Amino acid sequence: MESVLRQIGSVRSSLDDRTHAPKQGWGSGQEALIEILPEYVEGLQGIAAGDDVLVLTWLHLGDRSTLRVHPRDDPANPMTGVFATRSADRPNPIGLHRVTVLGIEQQRLLRVEGLEAVDGTPVVDIKPLLPWERGSRP
Amino acid sequence: MESVLRQIGSVRSSLDDRTHAPKQGWGSGQEALIEILPEYVEGLQGIAAGDDVLVLTWLHLGDRSTLRVHPRDDPANPMTGVFATRSADRPNPIGLHRVTVLGIEQQRLLRVEGLEAVDGTPVVDIKPLLPWERGSRP
Repeated sequence: MESVLRQIGSVRSSLDDRTHAPKQGWGSGQEALIEILPEYVEGLQGIAAGDDVLVLTWLHLGDRSTLRVHPRDDPANPMTGVFATRSADRPNPIGLHRVTVLGIEQQRLLRVEGLEAVDGTPVVDIKPLLPWERGSRP
Repeated sequence: MESVLRQIGSVRSSLDDRTHAPKQGWGSGQEALIEILPEYVEGLQGIAAGDDVLVLTWLHLGDRSTLRVHPRDDPANPMTGVFATRSADRPNPIGLHRVTVLGIEQQRLLRVEGLEAVDGTPVVDIKPLLPWERGSRP
């Protein structure tokens, strides 16, 4: 498969390393910016303030050789296959984040609520939510 | 970013080309198999029949140069940025599918309901659902 991911943007946040990255974001109040590269701005047409969207990131600090982990890095949790967890350590460390768009600045800066990712994390996709992905806020 | 996706498995389904692939799957009753490559089977530990999971695929038939589309391939729908749609045509054609695991056969064949993807579609990740991704069935 021809499968080299293309970076479409980057996360700009106040989180500067992985140990400070909380585990789950939506509803947290955490604000961040997504800076979309100029060549992909056209793909944003139709996204507006107030939308809830899914942001797919490339968790570049993840260990791609890991197949089992203690969930939430807690040794008290039994070893579990990474596909049964949301660990960033996995063969393809794609992060999936539900966020609320607060606004779009300078046409290519998305201000979002709920994206808890380390500053500089590559963004690879944005998708609208389907109805059955709209669960309740924790 | 070091970002070559690794194929962890393949979809085995009765859908043999993209024009027959329905747009949205969960709740459709459509059954398919996910065949996990032997070297990644360890990562499945903890997934069981009855679980709802997210399957991430690589929609290898997608056109990666497309930035705007008529949603649902309907010319009556105004042109929209791909990041505001679930089109398979997008810079990184990652498919996101909510499915129900019906069973696991021979340790590495997941029988699932709701995965409407063309036979042979590469699978790149499987994730458990977080509570706020558990919306209602359509």
